[in-house]
Amino acid sequence: MNQTVQTAVVGVTGYAGAELARLLLHHPRLQSTPPVFAGRVDEKDAARGGVPLTEIHPQLAGSHGASELKQEPFSWKLLAERGVKVLFLATPHEMSREGTPEALALGIRVIDLSAAWRLTDAENRAVYAFVDEGSSVAAAVQEKAVYGMPELHRTEIAGADLVANPGCYATSIILALKPLIAAGVVNVSHGIVADSKSGVSGAGKAATAKTHFMYAADNLSAYAVFAHRHTGELLEQIGLTREEITFTPHLLPIPRGILSTIYVQFNEAQTRESVIRVYEEFFAESPIVRLYEKGLPQIQYSVRTNFADIGFEIDASGERAVIVSCLDNLLKGASGQAVQNLNVMMGWPESEGLV
Amino acid sequence: MNQTVQTAVVGVTGYAGAELARLLLHHPRLQSTPPVFAGRVDEKDAARGGVPLTEIHPQLAGSHGASELKQEPFSWKLLAERGVKVLFLATPHEMSREGTPEALALGIRVIDLSAAWRLTDAENRAVYAFVDEGSSVAAAVQEKAVYGMPELHRTEIAGADLVANPGCYATSIILALKPLIAAGVVNVSHGIVADSKSGVSGAGKAATAKTHFMYAADNLSAYAVFAHRHTGELLEQIGLTREEITFTPHLLPIPRGILSTIYVQFNEAQTRESVIRVYEEFFAESPIVRLYEKGLPQIQYSVRTNFADIGFEIDASGERAVIVSCLDNLLKGASGQAVQNLNVMMGWPESEGLV
Amino acid sequence: MNQTVQTAVVGVTGYAGAELARLLLHHPRLQSTPPVFAGRVDEKDAARGGVPLTEIHPQLAGSHGASELKQEPFSWKLLAERGVKVLFLATPHEMSREGTPEALALGIRVIDLSAAWRLTDAENRAVYAFVDEGSSVAAAVQEKAVYGMPELHRTEIAGADLVANPGCYATSIILALKPLIAAGVVNVSHGIVADSKSGVSGAGKAATAKTHFMYAADNLSAYAVFAHRHTGELLEQIGLTREEITFTPHLLPIPRGILSTIYVQFNEAQTRESVIRVYEEFFAESPIVRLYEKGLPQIQYSVRTNFADIGFEIDASGERAVIVSCLDNLLKGASGQAVQNLNVMMGWPESEGLV
Amino acid sequence: MNQTVQTAVVGVTGYAGAELARLLLHHPRLQSTPPVFAGRVDEKDAARGGVPLTEIHPQLAGSHGASELKQEPFSWKLLAERGVKVLFLATPHEMSREGTPEALALGIRVIDLSAAWRLTDAENRAVYAFVDEGSSVAAAVQEKAVYGMPELHRTEIAGADLVANPGCYATSIILALKPLIAAGVVNVSHGIVADSKSGVSGAGKAATAKTHFMYAADNLSAYAVFAHRHTGELLEQIGLTREEITFTPHLLPIPRGILSTIYVQFNEAQTRESVIRVYEEFFAESPIVRLYEKGLPQIQYSVRTNFADIGFEIDASGERAVIVSCLDNLLKGASGQAVQNLNVMMGWPESEGLV
Repeated sequence: MNQTVQTAVVGVTGYAGAELARLLLHHPRLQSTPPVFAGRVDEKDAARGGVPLTEIHPQLAGSHGASELKQEPFSWKLLAERGVKVLFLATPHEMSREGTPEALALGIRVIDLSAAWRLTDAENRAVYAFVDEGSSVAAAVQEKAVYGMPELHRTEIAGADLVANPGCYATSIILALKPLIAAGVVNVSHGIVADSKSGVSGAGKAATAKTHFMYAADNLSAYAVFAHRHTGELLEQIGLTREEITFTPHLLPIPRGILSTIYVQFNEAQTRESVIRVYEEFFAESPIVRLYEKGLPQIQYSVRTNFADIGFEIDASGERAVIVSCLDNLLKGASGQAVQNLNVMMGWPESEGLV
Repeated sequence: MNQTVQTAVVGVTGYAGAELARLLLHHPRLQSTPPVFAGRVDEKDAARGGVPLTEIHPQLAGSHGASELKQEPFSWKLLAERGVKVLFLATPHEMSREGTPEALALGIRVIDLSAAWRLTDAENRAVYAFVDEGSSVAAAVQEKAVYGMPELHRTEIAGADLVANPGCYATSIILALKPLIAAGVVNVSHGIVADSKSGVSGAGKAATAKTHFMYAADNLSAYAVFAHRHTGELLEQIGLTREEITFTPHLLPIPRGILSTIYVQFNEAQTRESVIRVYEEFFAESPIVRLYEKGLPQIQYSVRTNFADIGFEIDASGERAVIVSCLDNLLKGASGQAVQNLNVMMGWPESEGLV
Repeated sequence: MNQTVQTAVVGVTGYAGAELARLLLHHPRLQSTPPVFAGRVDEKDAARGGVPLTEIHPQLAGSHGASELKQEPFSWKLLAERGVKVLFLATPHEMSREGTPEALALGIRVIDLSAAWRLTDAENRAVYAFVDEGSSVAAAVQEKAVYGMPELHRTEIAGADLVANPGCYATSIILALKPLIAAGVVNVSHGIVADSKSGVSGAGKAATAKTHFMYAADNLSAYAVFAHRHTGELLEQIGLTREEITFTPHLLPIPRGILSTIYVQFNEAQTRESVIRVYEEFFAESPIVRLYEKGLPQIQYSVRTNFADIGFEIDASGERAVIVSCLDNLLKGASGQAVQNLNVMMGWPESEGLV
Repeated sequence: MNQTVQTAVVGVTGYAGAELARLLLHHPRLQSTPPVFAGRVDEKDAARGGVPLTEIHPQLAGSHGASELKQEPFSWKLLAERGVKVLFLATPHEMSREGTPEALALGIRVIDLSAAWRLTDAENRAVYAFVDEGSSVAAAVQEKAVYGMPELHRTEIAGADLVANPGCYATSIILALKPLIAAGVVNVSHGIVADSKSGVSGAGKAATAKTHFMYAADNLSAYAVFAHRHTGELLEQIGLTREEITFTPHLLPIPRGILSTIYVQFNEAQTRESVIRVYEEFFAESPIVRLYEKGLPQIQYSVRTNFADIGFEIDASGERAVIVSCLDNLLKGASGQAVQNLNVMMGWPESEGLV
């Protein structure tokens, strides 16, 4: 087991990038090896060696050497010179598709936060319309990719060269449903409803009509009904058909946090205890999931933590349940999970630097 | 048809009360007969004839004579002297239970904004544990009560002496579901999910742990799962059994507005056009419902209006639909609907003073 | 006095435009003559006669004929054919500079909501760098312009062909300071501090880094310190030198509303009563200003009203005062004031359709 | 120098308490000695040994042993048995007045987060109306108290038995003004304006009319004009008379963060560089203050950090400045500063566990 590792981050300018920088700079194993930050840098900034990290994210100033770091002009040569062994891609999907094969060829392990490599089924990937779809290179890379949810794929992640970090909505729903469905408790053919609500950071840093404060504030809107791109992850990871789940995302007027309210029918009547037992067994080795033995999680208790929180209520008959799942879309829903994957890949305690 | 009417409001201090005062003061038919405001007034304020309305709600100052009005010490004598013919009760449930029989006995018609008289089935009412439950007086009053949703009960409301103004959640769900279920389109036995989200004003003016800014802001929480008190209204008005609907309310970090996301299975495949036709027929005479022919309503477009907005999406198979229903919980969900009821009771155009 | 008038609005798509449309559609004098909405319309929309108003602003649907109206392709010919007599320009500064001379030439009176014609001193205008600055046409138009604050210039506005509707920050500060300074109460040479806070709608509808929800929400930031463009209006309307006032705007994490906290030194000790008297005299004919005899205004009480609210506190010595001034930046700070100007120009009651 | 110390916290239930618990549980020196949490515990909870910490603050679950900790029934005996050496009082003022003498008598050093011991001048303390005011015990304790702002009193804090942790508003203003005034740069007699804006957590956890979401959200209000209780701290720590500063607090519609906008007149013209030099000298040993060499701090960059951020703008003449100071009211404004004081008292690096 290595005591430390040289990492790099491409895409630190976004919201997930900011959280990733914060987590890596504070990670106990990385105190002597701060990440290399690299990306597109204009000429003027290149002349001064890159853009100071604290100009991009002023909140990082004053701690763990952040004030000395820069986002440097990206090149594979730079990564090689710095001895980068693990590369975080917090980049747009297409950019991840492009960069990953090259990184792997250089012997650099990749944790990709985009959707580039999450889906094994070409039909599910179709919604992204990747330009290299169908190429043999892409197919070979896809073959190596492991879906980066340690609670489901801990062993494969440990040995993986390419970890496809999950979507935020998908994480909140898969963690809530997978244990129950794996245990055969849920009547899947009856159909499942996943009504999810996410804070605005989930929509990214691009200034658009829908991320304008005046659109999002004091509002709630459903979108991408029957058509959200995270649906493919639900189908592949939980093992559902498109008819078996209805997933509706909503845009919440808050910066961060996801709450998914999930409606299931049981195959036979359950009790609170029987359901808790199923979850506890499934998550026995999972330090990042917090199960509510009573009450329900709320966004306020999981936001700005790396945890995923799960709770539920069963109706009087024991036949229906409402499951509530909460997490921070930038942490367990993105960068926290990425660091959790790093820990697993390095053989470090899974929650190190995260709790 | 009377050109005007003397109204009174008990309970102007709350959020629904403030909106009711605003609507009545601006109502074209009531310009010469401002409402009498009456309520509990302490001795010091009684000595000055009551509490100035604009001390309670500073936003009302400067228009339609609001600055001359007071919340006066309540007495039946006061209402009689002022010739009150229609009484709005924006009071706690128990207070409405107590006051209504007396008002009716004096020949005053009542529009009650509480849940006191909404439910005809004693089992559904049980959740409120009314102290006079089972008394013959209460039973006689209940007999007279009409559920105050003009879109469903226009004719009965016109002649009613007691109108039970609906709950805000219930309004948003009933308007979305009733047309489809009445038309036999929905597979009711499959089960319906109503996932509702409401702004904080729905929780009332009492300062509690859950209405504290620090609890509600930047948060989302589900509550009263399988147990919310508005469920009875859904059962009675839509005609469902408790097993046929799962209703989950959530507390949104916004002041006002409700959005309900409703999941139904159709009996046979529908098209956008066939569903629109069902709604259009049902709401042909209903000026307060706005049907979205495409796109989905959002809280931002219905909030601070008296309208209820309804839209929907159907999946590729035509067999499942997600219906989205929005309204302002204090307007169509409370005071706007109360004034709509007043219009119907007086034979005035249903949307007068509301659009 | 005309009973009605044909108006037109260019620029209905923005936030001020939406409020202007709402106010004009509900204005009692304009029920038979809805405004003409005109603007840039792409070819496809031109083919269907323009963009339905309720596609632009869904909240307007269902009332006062809004659903039948369109934003039509702008042309002077259109305005002439429709017999437009008063034109509201809710357009960018440069577009107002360009359009106003032409409108005046056609005998159309203009109420311009931009900063195009607010400033008579070229030095104060310099910050806008108008492309026609120095031209004789512009100079002639500027000559006609009246600063559209009825509380200061009621008579000139009544006869004006061009009304330059004030800036939102400027309105909140001028209304609070002008009466005291005109009365000679304030020690101007000591210097005045105006610390203003505005909601995000003041920044306009363009999606930028600073109007992104993630930037504005849960945040407060000062900007344009010693350099805000509304400063010129303060100097010209109050009669101050640049050294005599320090004005700092801040971006509040709310959609609407301005609160200005203003710090003055008196020439000699004042009492609450003496200061109230000064304000009451100044605003004796002004129905849109609400003076707080005790307590202080808050954004919540003025927002979504057309009023400007003013209150103050004096220190124990009577020599210093803190004045608090609140208004809705889209109403008294923009469209409400524009309609107030229309009322004055038409000889109608100043607050008609506004209270 | 001790490698660790046994601490205790009374008052963990409040907002500052929650942050204090989080900071202490994560503090590198306290991993083997988690704090004792003690307070008022009802009989039922006492029977189970106290209230689990994660029932009070669910967000703390899952890390650093929080799930094993309880708020235990408070007694001096408990603190003695556990060997407590440093006691944090996050209690109401009066409770701190009562408890501190007893703690000191037992040889326990106290860091008090209330205002109980911050003010040495009885006139300034009068606003709190302490019941033991004038007693010899209180006077003796006051004598020992050191104002807990390490940037000003590092040496005294190191040896203190009683540290009076500063108020949040006061911290934001003192840090911005003290360096400039100590250097003689500011024209104090001209008067200083401090216009401060604070998030709602500053108002505490009690559910009141003013902490109701409906009052605070979408609002801004000034309060306690010329009368805020933190004024005494400004006078004593900066060395001002009551006439020399006008301090106006405002309630911001955000959970956390303070921004103070401070207006000063210089004695003679300054440059950006000369002012930066003054600050840099003053804060040369202060790792918790971040000076902005250009631009201005914003709440978003300091909130949820332990830092105080300071920036400024100077006008063209060099004679006036606007200083902007930001911090998180629960961290550098309360619990972060308390832990900073602990570090100084223990001889540990001042920012340990805080950056």
